[in-house]
Amino acid sequence: MPMIDLRSDTVTQPTEAMRRAMYTAEVGDDVYGEDPTVNRLEQLGAELTGKEAALFVASGTMGNQLAVMTHSPKGDEIICEAESHLFYYEVGGLAYLAGVQARPLTGDKGILPAAAIDAAVRPADIHQPHTSLICLENTHNRAGGTYYSIDQLKEISRLAAEREIAVHTDGARLFNAAVAQQTTIAELTQYSDTVSICLSKGLGAPAGSLLVGSAAFIVRARRFRKMLGGGMRQAGILAAAALVGLTSMVERLADDHHHARQLGEAAAHLGLEVDLATVKTNIVIFDVEKTGKNARQVIELLQQAGVKANAFGEYKVRFVTHYGVTGADVENTIRALAQIVKG
Amino acid sequence: MPMIDLRSDTVTQPTEAMRRAMYTAEVGDDVYGEDPTVNRLEQLGAELTGKEAALFVASGTMGNQLAVMTHSPKGDEIICEAESHLFYYEVGGLAYLAGVQARPLTGDKGILPAAAIDAAVRPADIHQPHTSLICLENTHNRAGGTYYSIDQLKEISRLAAEREIAVHTDGARLFNAAVAQQTTIAELTQYSDTVSICLSKGLGAPAGSLLVGSAAFIVRARRFRKMLGGGMRQAGILAAAALVGLTSMVERLADDHHHARQLGEAAAHLGLEVDLATVKTNIVIFDVEKTGKNARQVIELLQQAGVKANAFGEYKVRFVTHYGVTGADVENTIRALAQIVKG
Amino acid sequence: MPMIDLRSDTVTQPTEAMRRAMYTAEVGDDVYGEDPTVNRLEQLGAELTGKEAALFVASGTMGNQLAVMTHSPKGDEIICEAESHLFYYEVGGLAYLAGVQARPLTGDKGILPAAAIDAAVRPADIHQPHTSLICLENTHNRAGGTYYSIDQLKEISRLAAEREIAVHTDGARLFNAAVAQQTTIAELTQYSDTVSICLSKGLGAPAGSLLVGSAAFIVRARRFRKMLGGGMRQAGILAAAALVGLTSMVERLADDHHHARQLGEAAAHLGLEVDLATVKTNIVIFDVEKTGKNARQVIELLQQAGVKANAFGEYKVRFVTHYGVTGADVENTIRALAQIVKG
Amino acid sequence: MPMIDLRSDTVTQPTEAMRRAMYTAEVGDDVYGEDPTVNRLEQLGAELTGKEAALFVASGTMGNQLAVMTHSPKGDEIICEAESHLFYYEVGGLAYLAGVQARPLTGDKGILPAAAIDAAVRPADIHQPHTSLICLENTHNRAGGTYYSIDQLKEISRLAAEREIAVHTDGARLFNAAVAQQTTIAELTQYSDTVSICLSKGLGAPAGSLLVGSAAFIVRARRFRKMLGGGMRQAGILAAAALVGLTSMVERLADDHHHARQLGEAAAHLGLEVDLATVKTNIVIFDVEKTGKNARQVIELLQQAGVKANAFGEYKVRFVTHYGVTGADVENTIRALAQIVKG
Repeated sequence: MPMIDLRSDTVTQPTEAMRRAMYTAEVGDDVYGEDPTVNRLEQLGAELTGKEAALFVASGTMGNQLAVMTHSPKGDEIICEAESHLFYYEVGGLAYLAGVQARPLTGDKGILPAAAIDAAVRPADIHQPHTSLICLENTHNRAGGTYYSIDQLKEISRLAAEREIAVHTDGARLFNAAVAQQTTIAELTQYSDTVSICLSKGLGAPAGSLLVGSAAFIVRARRFRKMLGGGMRQAGILAAAALVGLTSMVERLADDHHHARQLGEAAAHLGLEVDLATVKTNIVIFDVEKTGKNARQVIELLQQAGVKANAFGEYKVRFVTHYGVTGADVENTIRALAQIVKG
Repeated sequence: MPMIDLRSDTVTQPTEAMRRAMYTAEVGDDVYGEDPTVNRLEQLGAELTGKEAALFVASGTMGNQLAVMTHSPKGDEIICEAESHLFYYEVGGLAYLAGVQARPLTGDKGILPAAAIDAAVRPADIHQPHTSLICLENTHNRAGGTYYSIDQLKEISRLAAEREIAVHTDGARLFNAAVAQQTTIAELTQYSDTVSICLSKGLGAPAGSLLVGSAAFIVRARRFRKMLGGGMRQAGILAAAALVGLTSMVERLADDHHHARQLGEAAAHLGLEVDLATVKTNIVIFDVEKTGKNARQVIELLQQAGVKANAFGEYKVRFVTHYGVTGADVENTIRALAQIVKG
Repeated sequence: MPMIDLRSDTVTQPTEAMRRAMYTAEVGDDVYGEDPTVNRLEQLGAELTGKEAALFVASGTMGNQLAVMTHSPKGDEIICEAESHLFYYEVGGLAYLAGVQARPLTGDKGILPAAAIDAAVRPADIHQPHTSLICLENTHNRAGGTYYSIDQLKEISRLAAEREIAVHTDGARLFNAAVAQQTTIAELTQYSDTVSICLSKGLGAPAGSLLVGSAAFIVRARRFRKMLGGGMRQAGILAAAALVGLTSMVERLADDHHHARQLGEAAAHLGLEVDLATVKTNIVIFDVEKTGKNARQVIELLQQAGVKANAFGEYKVRFVTHYGVTGADVENTIRALAQIVKG
Repeated sequence: MPMIDLRSDTVTQPTEAMRRAMYTAEVGDDVYGEDPTVNRLEQLGAELTGKEAALFVASGTMGNQLAVMTHSPKGDEIICEAESHLFYYEVGGLAYLAGVQARPLTGDKGILPAAAIDAAVRPADIHQPHTSLICLENTHNRAGGTYYSIDQLKEISRLAAEREIAVHTDGARLFNAAVAQQTTIAELTQYSDTVSICLSKGLGAPAGSLLVGSAAFIVRARRFRKMLGGGMRQAGILAAAALVGLTSMVERLADDHHHARQLGEAAAHLGLEVDLATVKTNIVIFDVEKTGKNARQVIELLQQAGVKANAFGEYKVRFVTHYGVTGADVENTIRALAQIVKG
């Protein structure tokens, strides 16, 4: 019996439709701009997000780092959430690559209030760096898949315009935010100058993300992509799978959200601490301290029962649902968890 | 009548003894290591702090930035306090120069608890930067001149050793911390691998700081100083004044502390919010909101009454005492403040 | 009739065998180290080059930049050829990413003599950067596909060892150098600490390169790859095609060399200036000034005759042969060129 | 008897007039812009060079690095001479600080022909960095104090304007160039957007340089100076000495040039290889190979005879004249050299 893999939605296998699309993909040298499949993907990405242009990049990290490199001159300060992917999980790239200083603020379940952002913008002062970018993560991974409401996005967008600061959204799971709010992705991207979107998480493509923004911005980001070594020749192979993800895998994210909710409620029912208010997309984080075991021990027991999961600190465990996780898998997982809790 | 300048202890004028020392200073080309006065200052700095070697640098900022550049490879993460000078007032230099990511933690009145530092050290994980440095600010400027107790320093030092992380202290006002605790500076520096100490604040020299550490560390920092353009030829002129500061201006810091205390108590007495627990060295920060005026307005009124001060945000005003501020100045300042409060 | 594309060997289309390999590739999450196809490719790469470990990266540029980032601390100097890809065509990445200063030396037809390298190594001096890396390009693209003899590599390797400087080889076309010298790739890689090898040029894979070196080196490079955003999830798709290239496309490079030779000799025969001594692999660079036309005009005329090529400055044209170019294509190209020369 | 120090004009001791000026200098906190002596120096520097504004910095290296940091965004390429101070002697700062790639060109005795610069400007191409700055060194130290003619400067300035590239001049010894050409410094600075000028070499101040340019440029450079730690508080002490240098030490540089000429001619007369065409300012570089001794040995013998000098590679020795070197010193030096040559 195959393992149930709840570690991350990055473990998704390409679907048969994706494999077929890659097999037959029309490709060319993308560094010359001649890969028709990449071009189609970038055009669709721009359309879906309501931006002028898009750039296909190797990963969400590459999309985020390129955004910062393109927005902010070396030495500037950027505002981000203290546990955002950009600050927490990108290997210190902000300082290494763009050479910018991160100003991490602790959000409310990952969500940055406009007032907190406003207070963190630096005044004109010879001792202080210039603030040139606000970065949002939507949905927010470490906070358990939480998302910004439209009103919150509007308020931040207004503030940013007033302060003449750009906004970038790390939308690795932005489709989850859109589906959960029953809206389109364009409704969310309109409040952000640039957005990076992963095609390899919930959408299931083997690799790749899109960075979207103005045409002039993408021209500059494309140069930086070349510098990072992200210019791939016949990238249309990967783009073909990404197109399948973008056109056929979005609506089904609702199933993942339903499964996450089931897992979250089951954990709560078993007496584990879990903030159900945050369980609105495809991530569940719960505390196992009450079991008398720590996260590592619980993960070990889950593993023995056929379920893979990741620890989130000493006592927290994270489940991420995706299209490789079925309703039956969810039931089996709940059963395994119940066994562990009951000892 | 000259203004009473409480904006900062950086405004101190060189004393007559300093001017004479500079006039007669024996100098040479310090880039060749041939300036006898610089050499004497560096030797004394090393001795006083119990370190193997010292480097004379143009400013506290240069000392701090060199410390980070020398300790931490590009891309590493360093832990510092969220309102520390290094993070707050050094123009984003951490990211620009060393290329490191700051992990700012909010301290308790500027003081970082060892437990908070411990929790912020990154685990070995391919997504995360490596933590290689802890930076302390002692005394802490923005928190109002607060200092670490010896026990707190010990605990951080022990933790750092266990985790194999270096400790750097921004000791721009470390002599204030020593005098306030009635101890020697060496007692404080022993818990830190490297320390930068300002000679141009309370000690009154026109310019310059010392960076102290192991001999090997200082050799590397000296190269970086050259790169920053901090290699000055006949630097002995400045070193001569700094020597006067180091040998004759330390004990008198107690007067500054007494004056700050007087100012703080007066502010409290006038009904202004001030945390007297923090007023132990030469800085007083108080809140003027109760006067119905904001900081800028209060500073304007003080200016008219012959007192200069700096705003610290919307409603806070900072006074810094130094040897250019006499007992009479303190009395006049209190009188001026009382007038403003009473309207 | 399809165009004959002599612009570069980067335009190669994946073969049917590659497409099938990608269709059926067993994949996993490579960031977790769980992609069996990537693991197989990396193991084979290490074996073929006689190194401990290999890393699959998105491009040759990524492989080169990672090598420098891993070898050289920020601020060091690296020695390279003045028209090497690393210095000439990687968008200034050396300074932007690793923060190192390039010391470009003009080689003899792209080949750096050991004596020139030796003279460029910096002495221990506080004004000068530390030299920590020698970068060779083998074969050398802009010099027309020239390669280092084994003796030259030995001499540089010996010098580097004496001076305690690492050697990295940009082996984008190292298989061409091996085939042209009728030797194995391991015979060439033994003189270099690290090597990057392209799988997407002559070997025909859609994208990807291998960076090989010691196990410890690759562990560190892998972290940097994550920072650049080069960590792709189900990268086994691309690795599957690369494996086909690595195991079945090497010997046939001799055909490309034969074709290049034919093109070079024809150009010479037509009276165009071409250094046949450099035409030993799959690149031909010739001067068209004698035609009374500049490179752009000649390329335009070739285009009309069904042949694509790239300009190399005002009067030079470059042809690159690859498995998409047949013997008949070579004949047609020669005919088209003859027409242009004859006016 | 004191040593005759021909190692560099950086060894100059402050004059009595400088010491007196420092003793009585009116000073203030320059970070607040309140140091009247610094302000006077900066104003005079701007006037003399015909620029809008000037910035007092700790050294020539700091002036040069700030110029590049302010002119060129990270990742750009700058053109400079292969043995220019900026590239050769600033510890790799170009890559470390600004993050720019140097494109070093070998000049004609240190002088870059406009045509060579033109050919090195990068085309618009996604593989190549953007060229944004041309750096000239005038006079050129390693080439022996050579300078650009006005016509050469004009031509470079015209080219730079056409290509929309800025020009920075490292004018550490620009006064020497002006005096040698019997012209004013403004005549030379007009062809350069920014210039750095040393006050601590021939002009004899203990430390400091001026960076001059447009008002907007200097505002930005001032921020970067703060970041480098170059913001010194009562910097007026050093500025006072620099003012003496700027107002009273320029014309006498002609003596230094005369002395250098005498030394150069004597060396030639003794059969040593020396390019007298380059000996027009205060530097003489000659080859000692014919003595059967290498540079280190000759320097050792000179030292024993009371003369200090620096080696310039295996067989070359450099003499630099300055106001600490008298006519008698020159005679004694010639005598000592003659002894060594004759064995």
